[in-house]
Amino acid sequence: MKVALGPKNCLYPILTTLVGANVNGKPNYITIAHVGIMDFMSISLGMGKIHYTNAGIKENGCFSVNIPSVAMVKETDYCGIVSGKKTDKAKLFDNFYGKLKTAPMIKQCPINMECRLNEIIDFPRHDIFIGEVAATYCDEAVMTDGVVDFAKVRPILFVMNDKSYWKLGERLAKAWDVGKALKKG
Amino acid sequence: MKVALGPKNCLYPILTTLVGANVNGKPNYITIAHVGIMDFMSISLGMGKIHYTNAGIKENGCFSVNIPSVAMVKETDYCGIVSGKKTDKAKLFDNFYGKLKTAPMIKQCPINMECRLNEIIDFPRHDIFIGEVAATYCDEAVMTDGVVDFAKVRPILFVMNDKSYWKLGERLAKAWDVGKALKKG
Repeated sequence: MKVALGPKNCLYPILTTLVGANVNGKPNYITIAHVGIMDFMSISLGMGKIHYTNAGIKENGCFSVNIPSVAMVKETDYCGIVSGKKTDKAKLFDNFYGKLKTAPMIKQCPINMECRLNEIIDFPRHDIFIGEVAATYCDEAVMTDGVVDFAKVRPILFVMNDKSYWKLGERLAKAWDVGKALKKG
Repeated sequence: MKVALGPKNCLYPILTTLVGANVNGKPNYITIAHVGIMDFMSISLGMGKIHYTNAGIKENGCFSVNIPSVAMVKETDYCGIVSGKKTDKAKLFDNFYGKLKTAPMIKQCPINMECRLNEIIDFPRHDIFIGEVAATYCDEAVMTDGVVDFAKVRPILFVMNDKSYWKLGERLAKAWDVGKALKKG
């Protein structure tokens, strides 16, 4: 039986990321799970306007998206509960820069993308940053036959409904393939 | 060791959804995993302009987002490989409508959200539809203590890198909590 929940966002689980930007010339990271993909190379971040990191993204015109593994769940959650205004979160990690020069990235995260900021959509309480992937770095250890293998990445997924983090499970099927069974003829 | 992959979108895994719209007065569904969350109630869909469903979203000013379970992986994939131009995909499912009246939803999906279309961002090859959740319907069987329980929903996650669907794994930790261990004092 269907239950009407009223307007309730249930677009979960969603990938938990650590978004990086230089703020006042120093690397800072914030936990963001309200992310999205727009076209093949465009990524969106929904970030409350109160956050310290937003100014750094605007100033530098770039940001990084780092994908932490489940082994980093404490550090990942911590970056979401303390503000860069008061705490130097970059100390938790080894930081590095890539071709954009001012988008700090986290060496401990198995995947890092540096993104150029293309557009900001102004929402009442959020800046929606739309960026384009400029370069991607990946731990050799999480690749299989030259392709990123998310079983090895072990990403952290987030669900708002019960405020929890989740692991990724097993591979289920091939996309653009398993449904062919329903095609007639 | 870090490997430079060039610009490669690795913002995966991402939730696989079935997006619904009336097209020419009839329900149609398309598999969309390039979704995102912007603020609490705003959802984005990145949909190639070639798709049949786009016109229906524009015409009706609304759409639905249905979350299929792993038991529906064949039907879900099928909706991504055949076009509504040629195939009546609504026949696969029991369809229902909610308060918006013209956003068709799939009874077999454990979660359904009907959304008002607020904005379209024009990308070169994609329409980015931004909608606001107007009402949400959920199978009673996937709730635990009045909250949507994604262990029961059993959503399908998508990874573009190796074109695969994945299951959700186990609960890992509480958000805004597990990181407190790193707070000093």
